[in-house]
Amino acid sequence: MANDVHYFTEENSAEAVLARIIDPQNERLAEVMTSIIKHLHAVVKEVEPTYEEWETAIEFLTATGHMCDDRRQEFILLSDVLGVSMLVDAINTRRPTGATENTVLGPFHVAGVPNREHGDTISEDGLGEPLYVRGTVKDSDGNPVAGAIVDTWQASHDGFYDNQKPDEKPEHNLRGIFKTDEKGAFWYRAVKPAYYGIPNDGPVGKMLEGLGRDNMRPAHIHFIVSAPGFETVTTHLFDSQCPYLENDAVFGVKESLITDVELKDDPDMAASIKMENPFWAVDADFVLSPAS
Amino acid sequence: MANDVHYFTEENSAEAVLARIIDPQNERLAEVMTSIIKHLHAVVKEVEPTYEEWETAIEFLTATGHMCDDRRQEFILLSDVLGVSMLVDAINTRRPTGATENTVLGPFHVAGVPNREHGDTISEDGLGEPLYVRGTVKDSDGNPVAGAIVDTWQASHDGFYDNQKPDEKPEHNLRGIFKTDEKGAFWYRAVKPAYYGIPNDGPVGKMLEGLGRDNMRPAHIHFIVSAPGFETVTTHLFDSQCPYLENDAVFGVKESLITDVELKDDPDMAASIKMENPFWAVDADFVLSPAS
Repeated sequence: MANDVHYFTEENSAEAVLARIIDPQNERLAEVMTSIIKHLHAVVKEVEPTYEEWETAIEFLTATGHMCDDRRQEFILLSDVLGVSMLVDAINTRRPTGATENTVLGPFHVAGVPNREHGDTISEDGLGEPLYVRGTVKDSDGNPVAGAIVDTWQASHDGFYDNQKPDEKPEHNLRGIFKTDEKGAFWYRAVKPAYYGIPNDGPVGKMLEGLGRDNMRPAHIHFIVSAPGFETVTTHLFDSQCPYLENDAVFGVKESLITDVELKDDPDMAASIKMENPFWAVDADFVLSPAS
Repeated sequence: MANDVHYFTEENSAEAVLARIIDPQNERLAEVMTSIIKHLHAVVKEVEPTYEEWETAIEFLTATGHMCDDRRQEFILLSDVLGVSMLVDAINTRRPTGATENTVLGPFHVAGVPNREHGDTISEDGLGEPLYVRGTVKDSDGNPVAGAIVDTWQASHDGFYDNQKPDEKPEHNLRGIFKTDEKGAFWYRAVKPAYYGIPNDGPVGKMLEGLGRDNMRPAHIHFIVSAPGFETVTTHLFDSQCPYLENDAVFGVKESLITDVELKDDPDMAASIKMENPFWAVDADFVLSPAS
């Protein structure tokens, strides 16, 4: 061995494990595992688990793995509720002040959504309180970005995405892709999204319960906004009146993404945009930073 | 909320997550998860994973979970190769200087093993180089412990436990339970155990390969030694000549557990203990600490 021999002791435990990484095939894996090993041993030394607690941890991880299939990813849920997904997102989307901030993609985005025209509704079932969304895409200097692609999706009035309830909801309900006009604008009709609970019938739900934590996500609308020459933004807009704003189970809320959803009583406008009066309205304004 | 609101930022990420643990149902879970969340966020900040690397981590954990069934526990294997199992063992078995040190139980212990008489062989198939084991169990003052139970098991000459190869090896091959005599002594016949590889056909094996690490365990004999009024010792004795002593894949080796296995050329002794000459011999001496 190239290194000094390190037999394991309680005191040198992490060093004894790290001393075995001598000539890794995968340098990046070695870098990542070095950090993980140091912190994993620090956790064990801090909490001093009993054998039974260690077994509980093994059982938790095993049950989390067994919960994962084509429709359910319990380890991503775990990453989400521990704030890890958001932290990875934050690290990979550092942007200049003023640019729209990212937040998590979430598990409900799908490809193959129809392109829609300005003013169209994205509601395929007509259920819920009408919401008018009007937005702009601009660059950091305030110039409109024409031809930007705005991919939006959201939960329904009862808190479900179409692909969560394929038997009940029409395909592509509350999903649509728009292209901004020459003024960088887009507008469409939707329904007011509801807050909803993330799945709580697995090991992650049990963990949240033990910690006394909510499993709710505050009401929000998802957007992916992209245009040539700019960083793609994956984000949500959050309803400023939602009671769960301050305890999003996955930590997706950023202050800059909280937006007022206003009730409008304006029969003329309602008629011009083909909506019932009164109706909800929200501004969805995005600022893109230059591609790096 | 009782706490201040903490919307998530890259800087305050761990604090934002910890601020949600306000009124846990399970105080110990809250304590453990607080440590895990702090260190998990520290790891992410240190390594700054890309999205693809985060996905690789999710896939690794998922595959590890899917590998687990009634016969295989890949998360325990992961805990073992990262030194976590040994650290938990060390924390739970702190003993006075001079007492025999613990090491990991491992996955191959079974209950229902036959009681055997001093001098019996534990080899059910007679395969391998003959080994004579003679041992004592004493207290910290050097007094013999009569009636101590010595439960031993080991790999065969070709590196397998009976329950790994149930079609090839007789049940209880190289397993036995002995009771010490009035001098605290026990003795039996066995075969020289071989080193062996831990399973490398799953995600943990791939990880070890990427780190350039061996998957070998050095040759050893397992013992659980127990007696009323004393701490039970779960340990191994390691063959001091084994080439894998310095890189046990699960970090089970402690210096105090390394023992010489000597080749004896003594026809008279061989005849008296019913062994072929020459034969291997090892001393298996244990010191028990008082039960706490």
